[in-house]
Amino acid sequence: MIRAGIVGGTGYTGVELMRILAGHPEVEVVAATSRGDAGRLISDVYPNLRGAYSFPFVEPDLDALKTCDVVLFATPNGTAMRMAPELLHRGIRVIDLAADFRLKDSAEWETWYGEPHVCPELLDRAVYGLPEWNREAIIGADLIACPGCYPTSVQLPLLPLLKTGCVGDDFVIADVKSGVSGAGRKAEMAILMSETGESFKAYSVKGHRHWPEIRQGFRLFAGKEVPLTFVPHLTPMIRGIHSTLYLKATAPIDRVQATLESTYAQAAFVDILSKGAHPDTRNVRGSNRCQIAVHQPPTGDMLVVLSVIDNLVKGAAGQAVQCLNLMFGCNETTGLARFGTYP
Amino acid sequence: MIRAGIVGGTGYTGVELMRILAGHPEVEVVAATSRGDAGRLISDVYPNLRGAYSFPFVEPDLDALKTCDVVLFATPNGTAMRMAPELLHRGIRVIDLAADFRLKDSAEWETWYGEPHVCPELLDRAVYGLPEWNREAIIGADLIACPGCYPTSVQLPLLPLLKTGCVGDDFVIADVKSGVSGAGRKAEMAILMSETGESFKAYSVKGHRHWPEIRQGFRLFAGKEVPLTFVPHLTPMIRGIHSTLYLKATAPIDRVQATLESTYAQAAFVDILSKGAHPDTRNVRGSNRCQIAVHQPPTGDMLVVLSVIDNLVKGAAGQAVQCLNLMFGCNETTGLARFGTYP
Amino acid sequence: MIRAGIVGGTGYTGVELMRILAGHPEVEVVAATSRGDAGRLISDVYPNLRGAYSFPFVEPDLDALKTCDVVLFATPNGTAMRMAPELLHRGIRVIDLAADFRLKDSAEWETWYGEPHVCPELLDRAVYGLPEWNREAIIGADLIACPGCYPTSVQLPLLPLLKTGCVGDDFVIADVKSGVSGAGRKAEMAILMSETGESFKAYSVKGHRHWPEIRQGFRLFAGKEVPLTFVPHLTPMIRGIHSTLYLKATAPIDRVQATLESTYAQAAFVDILSKGAHPDTRNVRGSNRCQIAVHQPPTGDMLVVLSVIDNLVKGAAGQAVQCLNLMFGCNETTGLARFGTYP
Amino acid sequence: MIRAGIVGGTGYTGVELMRILAGHPEVEVVAATSRGDAGRLISDVYPNLRGAYSFPFVEPDLDALKTCDVVLFATPNGTAMRMAPELLHRGIRVIDLAADFRLKDSAEWETWYGEPHVCPELLDRAVYGLPEWNREAIIGADLIACPGCYPTSVQLPLLPLLKTGCVGDDFVIADVKSGVSGAGRKAEMAILMSETGESFKAYSVKGHRHWPEIRQGFRLFAGKEVPLTFVPHLTPMIRGIHSTLYLKATAPIDRVQATLESTYAQAAFVDILSKGAHPDTRNVRGSNRCQIAVHQPPTGDMLVVLSVIDNLVKGAAGQAVQCLNLMFGCNETTGLARFGTYP
Repeated sequence: MIRAGIVGGTGYTGVELMRILAGHPEVEVVAATSRGDAGRLISDVYPNLRGAYSFPFVEPDLDALKTCDVVLFATPNGTAMRMAPELLHRGIRVIDLAADFRLKDSAEWETWYGEPHVCPELLDRAVYGLPEWNREAIIGADLIACPGCYPTSVQLPLLPLLKTGCVGDDFVIADVKSGVSGAGRKAEMAILMSETGESFKAYSVKGHRHWPEIRQGFRLFAGKEVPLTFVPHLTPMIRGIHSTLYLKATAPIDRVQATLESTYAQAAFVDILSKGAHPDTRNVRGSNRCQIAVHQPPTGDMLVVLSVIDNLVKGAAGQAVQCLNLMFGCNETTGLARFGTYP
Repeated sequence: MIRAGIVGGTGYTGVELMRILAGHPEVEVVAATSRGDAGRLISDVYPNLRGAYSFPFVEPDLDALKTCDVVLFATPNGTAMRMAPELLHRGIRVIDLAADFRLKDSAEWETWYGEPHVCPELLDRAVYGLPEWNREAIIGADLIACPGCYPTSVQLPLLPLLKTGCVGDDFVIADVKSGVSGAGRKAEMAILMSETGESFKAYSVKGHRHWPEIRQGFRLFAGKEVPLTFVPHLTPMIRGIHSTLYLKATAPIDRVQATLESTYAQAAFVDILSKGAHPDTRNVRGSNRCQIAVHQPPTGDMLVVLSVIDNLVKGAAGQAVQCLNLMFGCNETTGLARFGTYP
Repeated sequence: MIRAGIVGGTGYTGVELMRILAGHPEVEVVAATSRGDAGRLISDVYPNLRGAYSFPFVEPDLDALKTCDVVLFATPNGTAMRMAPELLHRGIRVIDLAADFRLKDSAEWETWYGEPHVCPELLDRAVYGLPEWNREAIIGADLIACPGCYPTSVQLPLLPLLKTGCVGDDFVIADVKSGVSGAGRKAEMAILMSETGESFKAYSVKGHRHWPEIRQGFRLFAGKEVPLTFVPHLTPMIRGIHSTLYLKATAPIDRVQATLESTYAQAAFVDILSKGAHPDTRNVRGSNRCQIAVHQPPTGDMLVVLSVIDNLVKGAAGQAVQCLNLMFGCNETTGLARFGTYP
Repeated sequence: MIRAGIVGGTGYTGVELMRILAGHPEVEVVAATSRGDAGRLISDVYPNLRGAYSFPFVEPDLDALKTCDVVLFATPNGTAMRMAPELLHRGIRVIDLAADFRLKDSAEWETWYGEPHVCPELLDRAVYGLPEWNREAIIGADLIACPGCYPTSVQLPLLPLLKTGCVGDDFVIADVKSGVSGAGRKAEMAILMSETGESFKAYSVKGHRHWPEIRQGFRLFAGKEVPLTFVPHLTPMIRGIHSTLYLKATAPIDRVQATLESTYAQAAFVDILSKGAHPDTRNVRGSNRCQIAVHQPPTGDMLVVLSVIDNLVKGAAGQAVQCLNLMFGCNETTGLARFGTYP
């Protein structure tokens, strides 16, 4: 059994990690930390997990994690970078679901995250945990930076198209819509039911932290520097991300479709729908899949690409487990649901 | 008192019309027709209107409407065009909330609506009921084509910018999101709560009837022929439309802001938020207002314009009453709410 | 014009008060206080009210309110009792939407609200603001205790039945369901969209502050001491309360129906549906009405009574304005909506 | 492998069955029928199941099912009784998720379901599929009547209390609240998003088909004839049932708690929360569990019992698979989730 520790177990990605790992036949969660809930039984904090774990949350310190093979950070940004160096030093592998190791350029990281990076020397060593594009590196990694939820939903459909030149690289517009769980589990007025239910709004139009991450991905995996306009929206639902992507088509739509299908022919968790389909976030709810469809609107040379994921699964905890599976030699799909819970 | 008849009173725009007119001090609704609910008391079909109207729905025929000064059609497409000629002949003014008179070109209408137009000779006489851009014509009109909900939310922010050349006219991308009430009140599986709740999807990407209407508006009111990419989405809420509009900026954002502010300085129902604001559909729920904000993303020359309306009010029944007010010499705002119901 | 001040304008009942009063032809809001938002324009805090009020929120102190004829408290419990004595001393009338003056017995108040009452001598002077049962006292009052939202929804249907003996007084079970806005506008994790959306739960089964208030109402207005079981539930919607009430029938259901109808024959805001109807919270959304229906299940002598209100209107701000209208000689219905916003 | 056929695969219980069985290691679904979608690929009708089944829906006839070991009916009421006799004759076991075999008394069945029963002789042979109370009979059964969703949520908490006499048997009040998926997947106006979202209502107060079923369960498993008042409500969410149950306590609450705990000590899918807890439907979403808590309100001798299930899992498809596991000698929990998907 792989011995796993979870730091920051009381957020939505943390509880989703614990739910997924409770059903993973090759992983045993041996410790879960929480600053706020230390001392409380996991099942008291999360009654959905009653019967899954018998131990309490503990304070986040290294000793609690010393017997782990791998530690997963489901923490706010800025936490993993403070503990990762010592864990790595002890030979414990690290998977960060937050943003600490996503950007390769520490100056850019500091610009967007508003504080100095405490271990910039690890940024190169960190492997971007997008298995469909970085499988070999993940297999050999000891430090994984799991992609953000939006970047997962934007890069999976666009990387093949940019890389193969099916689309122009003069602009990409990403109009992305997320359920409210993407904002995390914290006491903030803006994400109350009465504030977000039955309403829809854009936010952070002037700049969002996932913007540099996506642009980095375009560079690293598609070799393209593309002007990106990225507008996130808050949607009155709990789970799900829908990305609507606009690009100039430079190839017939059938070649676009074929490119996506061949790129992901072997991918367990990327599912290319038939041309002209309308993916629906409900169909991937609870699943680790990304569903993608392409469209050519009635006139002009614009291409519209649609993608959906569950932000807490393929956008966070599921993708982390997919990386863990690769790192430890498990089957990539072990413990992960493919079929969404509908309705 | 202005004597009004409502044809098709049992859809969502019909009941909203009846709610608004119940509080209008200068209008008396004297008849409401419904093919399916004829003979039933209005208050039995719509308990929210108990006490407002004492009469039953009647079959839709001309005799039921002969004493009206104005007849409003809240019907499916293809109904108003069958009754309007005779009503106009009798000197009764007509306001169509559906699409029968929206397009000036009957061939284009037939392409998008799938049947022959039965009175194409009225298309020129019909006045497009967007008061902020067509006030004088509305005042003198006897046949009004109320704009579609999406076209209202797209044209109000964009017409001033296209007309004044603040933005390029090489492309417009309209990524629009609507609450489910926009799909109407009909027994269809696709709009069940279990199908649309907690989920998000695009639809009709390959072509939507509001696309030619918006392009026509750009031509008529801004004098511009603009390639338009229009992608509607179904949002898990009941009321509200949020449009996210992408264009090339050709003027500084402050001039864009100033253009909007000066265009709508006297408009009771168009509200330009400060630069960089994020309008939220909840703030216009139940109100006849459109709120608009402009943004310049971190890089590039893309301009992002955001607008919100209540699809059933400014996108339908409220705008119809605004037109009625103008046609009959009432104050433009009579009977119409400006302040949204929050939360 | 009646000069009104609002203390605590930034909660949901406060903003609803300001929305309603913005349309009230005989009231002018001259000041609104907010500890947290002092200095900010009302329209910046609540964009739905843009154009309604040009002044900013101010710090809550007596000077800000000295020119008022009436001050409405939309504050947390424990605030109004600290300012009311001085306001009354200055001849300013007070309407408290919170709980400070609801219970007549200060010891009971202290038990349920967990602190000493600072002006118990005012409890007798305070008039319970349920107009349908206390109209004369309200007309002459200078201090109004507006009923809680649940107590409004439970007392309106049950007081006539208990008073006339149509139902037994050996027990009342009130199974009540509220939308999330009833929990207020505060940064608490338990009322996040991700916590309350798509889920349903009971809460405070072991004791809720509205329980003694309802029992007091039964005593004062129906002259009955009735064992009450009161179970509130949190419902995944924003507005609305639905009460399902179980009692022993001691009269035929037709007499029950007749009793309700005759009691409320002149009541503008209480609407008795036909026997066997199922009231729906949507039909009173945004309205000041309570809709009520009675049922006799297939067997046994149990009577089931259903009632619905909008918790923020008839359950709070609307009822406060109804009281204000009575206190100042306006028509009882001025400024208040009767017809719910559907859908 | 157990060869399973599914009749009526296109409703919500059907698709949930297919999702669960797609992950069941000992069951192979070999045929799925659908009158309306015959000829279409399962994955085209249900994109969440893409990759799970490669065959199309077929017309519902016996030949399509002849190689099955077991056929599960996820059909409207009145379908299974028309095919079950012949299937049983061929030695194929039958599990009906609908109501055809739930009531033992054919006259009562006909009263509530409004048509003659076509094989009343099978009613005695049918085994009520509530594993926690009927395990031995299920193991040997060839015809299973799966309990209704409400009856599951009411009987699991109450049967132990009634049987042991912890509670009085003079009345039971069941105030039950269901998500909208309980109404099925059919084109009906009453279950549109715009009709059921953001609203709450009771329905069928004058009589619901689950009422005789629950009373029968009380007789069969607890030996008690109890007057039952049963009021179902439609809740603005998709999945979940919350039952709030009111009874006279005749034993101390600690004995009530102990009775429940000991009854279900070995039950994998019934989870007794600590005294005074408030179960939340979200915690069992997607899981086959029932969570239960007991409460004693502040005064009187009333006992309040709360239970939650996912109506499509423990209330339908999950419970059917639990029965199938027992019938075919699998581990009772195989293929079934215990941990709800939160948030």
